[in-house]
Amino acid sequence: MALISSSRRLRRTPFSEGVEAAGVKAYTVYNHMLLPTVFASVQEDYAHLKRAVQIWDVACERQVELRGPDAGRLMQMLTPRDLGGMTAGQCYYVPIVDETGGMLNDPVALKLAEDRYWISIADSDLLMWVKAVVYGYRLEVLVDEPDVSPLAVQGPLADELAARVFGDAVRKLRFFRFGWFDFDGACHVIARSGYSRQGGFEIYVEGGRNGMPIWSALMEAGRELDVRAGCPNGIERIEGGLLSYGNDMTR
Amino acid sequence: MALISSSRRLRRTPFSEGVEAAGVKAYTVYNHMLLPTVFASVQEDYAHLKRAVQIWDVACERQVELRGPDAGRLMQMLTPRDLGGMTAGQCYYVPIVDETGGMLNDPVALKLAEDRYWISIADSDLLMWVKAVVYGYRLEVLVDEPDVSPLAVQGPLADELAARVFGDAVRKLRFFRFGWFDFDGACHVIARSGYSRQGGFEIYVEGGRNGMPIWSALMEAGRELDVRAGCPNGIERIEGGLLSYGNDMTR
Repeated sequence: MALISSSRRLRRTPFSEGVEAAGVKAYTVYNHMLLPTVFASVQEDYAHLKRAVQIWDVACERQVELRGPDAGRLMQMLTPRDLGGMTAGQCYYVPIVDETGGMLNDPVALKLAEDRYWISIADSDLLMWVKAVVYGYRLEVLVDEPDVSPLAVQGPLADELAARVFGDAVRKLRFFRFGWFDFDGACHVIARSGYSRQGGFEIYVEGGRNGMPIWSALMEAGRELDVRAGCPNGIERIEGGLLSYGNDMTR
Repeated sequence: MALISSSRRLRRTPFSEGVEAAGVKAYTVYNHMLLPTVFASVQEDYAHLKRAVQIWDVACERQVELRGPDAGRLMQMLTPRDLGGMTAGQCYYVPIVDETGGMLNDPVALKLAEDRYWISIADSDLLMWVKAVVYGYRLEVLVDEPDVSPLAVQGPLADELAARVFGDAVRKLRFFRFGWFDFDGACHVIARSGYSRQGGFEIYVEGGRNGMPIWSALMEAGRELDVRAGCPNGIERIEGGLLSYGNDMTR
């Protein structure tokens, strides 16, 4: 297997410093960003994920933000899934398709408010499609990539770890729901979601500068829980029936 | 530096077999595809590029094809550059910008006919932007990614090598012009262009199955010219003043 060349095109993440200190062995590239793929070994990472708790740098799940009076109309234009029942605070898995039904991305959408959504994307520049749809249809929506970087907490001890850092209220989050939680004076969206079957959370860290403080707080608080740096695990995601856009499906 | 994990999301190219046989040491990811970055060393590759001839797997320069009665109108909508004087057989460097003037890609466009263009893209999913513009404006254009994979022949001996494989007519191509050249019964676009200052060609290989036969024919014909597998060279491209989208400029 060859090395990966560093480049400014392959963006580092707000958590890269922690990932490297934890001994990352390999990367892939996802949305032009470095995504760790192995720490100890795929097998060891798998066994640990199933018994303890891991912190995953999934900053590569970039957000496409929709904001403005037509945001809800636009969100429904993008996906064939009926969003009629979606309320603020909910996450929906929303396949995004082109006019022929071809898949452009298979993200999770978060409804932050009636006029504000985040689309947490898989590996394609969905931002371009969404911006051009807004442009062509003259919709009143601002579309941009905000400075938001998801960090996942996954594994059977995820509730315990998240509660130690963000308070007990985080335990009450229902699946695919999210709330706002304080860390060091700033508020971050935390959803009960993530790319494993082991359960856990995704923290949508707002502001790159907040990345390492949250990473370090989780590592510190999880020491006796055997917390480790991890990443989406190929064995576990296939066992869990989680499809990967680009790997298991293409347009 | 870490390893790069293999994945079906990181597409191999029609030339990957040749690249690996030539001892590639590192890759980057460009348009979801593997792009070689080092063979001997960046320094040795540089010195060789400046004195001999190299074959570069730049299949990652994916094509966005525009075809139909509104193709010319669409091509002009995409870029602020005046395309009024562009004739079939010409290449133009065409920055593609969004409605705010933000850069989406900085490709080279090839005008194949009055109603047909290829946009040879840098590292972003420009296909999505172009498709959505067509969709929003109800233009009569088919937009798709054809099975076309560029292979570059670069270096001071590029003319000699290309002529041995495609005939002497290739020597007459002017800078940023292209023609159609036969190889083994199939026609391929060849342009005098490429991402170095050393001169040479880009062969737009049509059909993945034709990739390795052309790669091997060039390697065979270039043996006494000291032909080697190469790749865009960081030192040479900076000396040559060639900007890299994502590295030197972002939106």
